[in-house]
Amino acid sequence: MLYSRLFGRPKKEAKKFESISHQLLTQGGFIDQVSSGIFNYLPLGKIVLTKIENIIREEMNNIGAQEVLMPALHPSSLWEKTDRWTSVDVLFKVKSQWGGEYALAPTHEETITPLAKKFIKSYRDLPLALYQITLKYRDEKRPKSGILRGREFGMKDLYSFHHDKKDLENFYQKVIQAYLKIFRRCGLTSVKITEASGGSFTKKFSHEFNVITPSGEVDLIYCDKESCSFAQNEEISQSKTICPRCQNPLKKEKAIEIGNIFDLGTRFSEAFDLKFVDQDGKEKFPIMGCYGIGTTRLMGAIVEVHHDDKGIIWPETVSPYRAIIVGLDLKEKPVRDRVFLVYEKLQNLGVEALLDDREEISPGEKFYDADLIGVPVRMVISQKTKDKIEIKGRTEEKVKLVSLDQLVNHFSFIK
Amino acid sequence: MLYSRLFGRPKKEAKKFESISHQLLTQGGFIDQVSSGIFNYLPLGKIVLTKIENIIREEMNNIGAQEVLMPALHPSSLWEKTDRWTSVDVLFKVKSQWGGEYALAPTHEETITPLAKKFIKSYRDLPLALYQITLKYRDEKRPKSGILRGREFGMKDLYSFHHDKKDLENFYQKVIQAYLKIFRRCGLTSVKITEASGGSFTKKFSHEFNVITPSGEVDLIYCDKESCSFAQNEEISQSKTICPRCQNPLKKEKAIEIGNIFDLGTRFSEAFDLKFVDQDGKEKFPIMGCYGIGTTRLMGAIVEVHHDDKGIIWPETVSPYRAIIVGLDLKEKPVRDRVFLVYEKLQNLGVEALLDDREEISPGEKFYDADLIGVPVRMVISQKTKDKIEIKGRTEEKVKLVSLDQLVNHFSFIK
Repeated sequence: MLYSRLFGRPKKEAKKFESISHQLLTQGGFIDQVSSGIFNYLPLGKIVLTKIENIIREEMNNIGAQEVLMPALHPSSLWEKTDRWTSVDVLFKVKSQWGGEYALAPTHEETITPLAKKFIKSYRDLPLALYQITLKYRDEKRPKSGILRGREFGMKDLYSFHHDKKDLENFYQKVIQAYLKIFRRCGLTSVKITEASGGSFTKKFSHEFNVITPSGEVDLIYCDKESCSFAQNEEISQSKTICPRCQNPLKKEKAIEIGNIFDLGTRFSEAFDLKFVDQDGKEKFPIMGCYGIGTTRLMGAIVEVHHDDKGIIWPETVSPYRAIIVGLDLKEKPVRDRVFLVYEKLQNLGVEALLDDREEISPGEKFYDADLIGVPVRMVISQKTKDKIEIKGRTEEKVKLVSLDQLVNHFSFIK
Repeated sequence: MLYSRLFGRPKKEAKKFESISHQLLTQGGFIDQVSSGIFNYLPLGKIVLTKIENIIREEMNNIGAQEVLMPALHPSSLWEKTDRWTSVDVLFKVKSQWGGEYALAPTHEETITPLAKKFIKSYRDLPLALYQITLKYRDEKRPKSGILRGREFGMKDLYSFHHDKKDLENFYQKVIQAYLKIFRRCGLTSVKITEASGGSFTKKFSHEFNVITPSGEVDLIYCDKESCSFAQNEEISQSKTICPRCQNPLKKEKAIEIGNIFDLGTRFSEAFDLKFVDQDGKEKFPIMGCYGIGTTRLMGAIVEVHHDDKGIIWPETVSPYRAIIVGLDLKEKPVRDRVFLVYEKLQNLGVEALLDDREEISPGEKFYDADLIGVPVRMVISQKTKDKIEIKGRTEEKVKLVSLDQLVNHFSFIK
């Protein structure tokens, strides 16, 4: 991509937002606020979001889940069946001028259960795991921290159906491992699995996946002893100060919830009278699980964790580009030709690169922008670098001079 | 994919729907109606939709358009600025319990224009073309024909910004070519470009892309002389009976609109006071174009055009799988092993195959289902086929017996 054609270029003068991810993603030209809790994703932001979604998609497919797409408009009758039409306080409601009313879905138990009911007849149809990646809606009182808590946001939600509790528990453990892998692949290595209350969704306990960061909205009580993994959401920790597992003093920090999993029991299969005939010939309600990852929130959380005072530091797996080529002295034809030659070579190698070909911008501003948008590798080609290319990682101080052959070898090797 | 694990298997007993695409997509396990005009996309349907979206994405990128993602919730103030808050009769409206009201977007001029305004300053920022692939909402009085006219539906919308009319016209022509290519790649080769009125969107003329089919909702007046391409939407044709270009008698048929393009002029740039400084130093309003393709509707239109009395006939480019392997006599271990061997070979070749490994289903039913879901190539492996594989195209009558080597060669060659 040529920087001169990229829509949504970095802005120096962006105003201050409360959270660092909101600030850097706006300044870097990844997102743009339309209204409180509602955002546009610009080309750079859309690429990052798609990369996150594809990592999630791969890991969902790996555990045998199948992708579907359910609507955001849910007839009110479905939510009345589960008694959630009036009890879920964040539900947006939409009237049709032709009669009838819809919920704008914050979650999809009300559509996945009747859908599953059309196809689940026998124990042979179980277990079943279905997921989707779509936009969700919550009428939050105070949307905050940019894309960390919005009124419209991206989410992957997975639902599973089982013939008994043990089968659910097996799958629940598989999902925990898949989630940890997803977060690792997105560059979040220290994720705490915590017990939490199920909120309005279920009366059972549930688990959250939390990343510790000062902009977090969850108060996390946890034990930082490496051999102990105790962690609880403060809501349910009853202000414990000593670890109930190892007696270590507990810590309290802000965290962002980036995933959650619920044992739904038979709450929804009963509400929709979804039954299957078990091996013993008896009709039973499948036991359900529900598992969410906020995709747009995850994008924000990655920035909260990976940045410095110069800007974002994208993990390579979700970076919008693998490398940025900063072209200087572009009015000199030999330099310009060389810049485009390197760009082409990288493209031919399948290395997604952003070429800063802007002529009216000073070298200082180009370096500033490259740091701000946080692509892992920066290359500089100028009159001064002659037939070499100056290369450095986003977090490195020292630059290296390499030949084009060395560069090609480097990227061929790590591909 | 193993058919025994696939969610949403074909149903023989599906009730009759008014349109053939609604009927076959439901029966085949591609879609499921949640409510009038609102659908679930099951795994098979989701794969087809993704393939269609990716074809569109490639062709949009090829003409230099950049992908963004805009929200469905639009603050009412944006729609008041363009006088469309009360004038667009299909607008769903959503109140927040915390104050404020939103439109549920049927189109995105109201967000793309203020977004573009933040970045377009000079003629050097033009032309600009941005697109997205998202869900859209229309409070239709009578949703009909399944996914051909829904209240919630998928759409690709592209918006372009130009410094003058000529530049818009150049790009408009590029989009026409890209659209024809997209439809061709999706298996729709005879698409008519017709003049239509701009509806509530614009007072200027616009163009529609129509596919002739009996379930269509548009009345198309056209000249079928090959050298003449005259076609008009009946709305504006004033009941012409003779071609104004070649004097041939005109025909009238039902058609489905699968794409449309509008010259928006400066209607929206003026409404949002979006200006740029032109080369002559003067401030001007960019001229805008808007270009849509209904992605879910396109999926329905493909089925309307490509089916027979046995089921769907997917064009290979959008088929959920390239081949279906029908395994018979699976209780015989040597046969079963061979079936899985062929399946694995195809997978290793990168050929997406569906393996009908269901044991409780009769051969007749398996053939029925294979025809219904419409995958381009059917292979049969049974006791009778011995070390050969029976192969035939979806629309062919005659089967061929081939060896595994021949099969592998076939797929290696056409890959």
